[in-house]
Amino acid sequence: MKAARFYGPGDIRVEDVPEPQARPGTVKVEVEWCGICGTDLHEYVDGPIFAPTADAPHPLTGESVPITLGHEFAGVVHELGEGVTDLRVGDRVVVEPYIVCGTCDACQQGKYNVCRTLGFVGLSGYGGGFSQFVVAERRWIHPLGDLGTDVGALIEPLAVAYHAVRLSHAQPGHTALVFGAGPIGLVTTAALRARGVEQIIVVEPADVRKAKAPVAGADHVLDPTATDVVAEVMELTKGRGADVSFECAGIDQVLKAAIQSTRVGGTCVNVAIWGHEASVAMNDLVFREVNVLGSLAYADDHPATIEMVASGKVDPFQFITGRIDLDDIVTSGFDELINNKEENVKILVRP
Amino acid sequence: MKAARFYGPGDIRVEDVPEPQARPGTVKVEVEWCGICGTDLHEYVDGPIFAPTADAPHPLTGESVPITLGHEFAGVVHELGEGVTDLRVGDRVVVEPYIVCGTCDACQQGKYNVCRTLGFVGLSGYGGGFSQFVVAERRWIHPLGDLGTDVGALIEPLAVAYHAVRLSHAQPGHTALVFGAGPIGLVTTAALRARGVEQIIVVEPADVRKAKAPVAGADHVLDPTATDVVAEVMELTKGRGADVSFECAGIDQVLKAAIQSTRVGGTCVNVAIWGHEASVAMNDLVFREVNVLGSLAYADDHPATIEMVASGKVDPFQFITGRIDLDDIVTSGFDELINNKEENVKILVRP
Repeated sequence: MKAARFYGPGDIRVEDVPEPQARPGTVKVEVEWCGICGTDLHEYVDGPIFAPTADAPHPLTGESVPITLGHEFAGVVHELGEGVTDLRVGDRVVVEPYIVCGTCDACQQGKYNVCRTLGFVGLSGYGGGFSQFVVAERRWIHPLGDLGTDVGALIEPLAVAYHAVRLSHAQPGHTALVFGAGPIGLVTTAALRARGVEQIIVVEPADVRKAKAPVAGADHVLDPTATDVVAEVMELTKGRGADVSFECAGIDQVLKAAIQSTRVGGTCVNVAIWGHEASVAMNDLVFREVNVLGSLAYADDHPATIEMVASGKVDPFQFITGRIDLDDIVTSGFDELINNKEENVKILVRP
Repeated sequence: MKAARFYGPGDIRVEDVPEPQARPGTVKVEVEWCGICGTDLHEYVDGPIFAPTADAPHPLTGESVPITLGHEFAGVVHELGEGVTDLRVGDRVVVEPYIVCGTCDACQQGKYNVCRTLGFVGLSGYGGGFSQFVVAERRWIHPLGDLGTDVGALIEPLAVAYHAVRLSHAQPGHTALVFGAGPIGLVTTAALRARGVEQIIVVEPADVRKAKAPVAGADHVLDPTATDVVAEVMELTKGRGADVSFECAGIDQVLKAAIQSTRVGGTCVNVAIWGHEASVAMNDLVFREVNVLGSLAYADDHPATIEMVASGKVDPFQFITGRIDLDDIVTSGFDELINNKEENVKILVRP
């Protein structure tokens, strides 16, 4: 079968690889759609970052580059491994793309998203969504019901947002503040809107992205290059600040503004992955007793995320800005995302 | 009456000031003991920090330096203001030394410890514990019951610890990790022990302080200059890390070790006040979903703190390393604490 494999910076090749075989307890899924994630882009531009290299293969998969990419994928059940009886061939499903040890403290706590040796299908081995077939254990297969597999490919990024919003304990009466209207900021905004949060303020400098935020659910969009964000948030919240805030940028000044704009006793969720150590005014936490929380990916969030979309609380189609074939993944996918970063949210690939 | 007043760096004078008068709704307390706090020491060495200056008087008191110091004090009721009927002259009491606006978002939420214009008796005006009499509103007066007023003077720092432990949600089955065995680290250790936390690990480099930690309740004391703290904590917790950790030092490397030693999904409470911005590896929060929380002073914690001591769960006398007269406050108090920082925990002053 064909697969898009990552070899090194700037080097992704669509080539033939052996088709994976169903084993007992697993499901063989025929991928219909797979989204390109910012993480994939990072690998392509600056990698290998998550992708394991020959001198340090992934401890669970034993694999190293070349690695098949793609972890935001959905498809139909192609074959059921021995012992799997609660799904049917042809069912539409999304795969929660985890590779976990099952024995570390995090796994034992059920927080498998922070497993000590966490890996991802499509980044750490066991194939990936930019190929025709993926085989995964039954536990990672989530039925999509009536949802299409294009929408199914969006469940993964939406689950990242659902998880962050869940950890924030955002409530319907709350004001939420989202820093960044890139893909993660937008899905976070949508998940907040789905939760019924009363007021959502999005902070974003780029015009194209600013235009997308209200569609996702923003009540107010602030441009940090044109306004004093902290002062404006205080104005919009009658001097209180936001009950919850989300740092989706990974920038020192943004984190600072997020903490300063968060209400006394409120929560600032860090969703961004950082490329450097941040300079943090800890006294801003202390003198307002703000809570800063790290949120990574998702754990047991897929069913609720599917339900969030199925119930119509989120329009997933707003996030699809392109549909391409696997053969065009480099030019129309990765290069397009690099050259037209702000115009695009999610480009879906058809293997 | 005599009072110790702060004029500027290195300048504290014991001099005569007018005696405050009880007003309706207030209680006039005759101070018996008042502890010298690290905050007082900061003012003396590097101040004015909290103490308001002539160009920026405190917004609630309107006062500025010279300011009477002392906010860790207890004494006996000397006179009841009009309308105060639930106390009796001679009752032993501790004063919660707040000056708050009552109208800001924090006050409205009951989080008056992070009032927008927060002030302290003994730092911001309205007198202070290093004088014979203090007048405070009834709401700030907490009866000590059978406890002596020397122990009463320790309720304030113990309430700081009680509050931080309360915010951490530490449970009896937990492992707790305390960075620093100065006064705040020691009272935090004692409050954790009182809460019944199973295992308490204290990290402290200074020998004299290391010796005090087991008395306060530490099961293990680690010297960060001699051991890899994160590795050692992992060893002591079977690879899990501490459920809760307390940063009582305000040092970048300490905060980093605290976060890295905290269990997946656990809580790191920042108790320290910082003199600079910290460099924080935010990914350490993200990839382990650790929660970093600011804790400031106390709010509605005095009654439970008094009960904690009255029930015998904390031996307060271990923290008293000196008892002096007001006239000797500079030489035997402030200078002694500067010159023999590690030997001392709490020096009590008799006005």
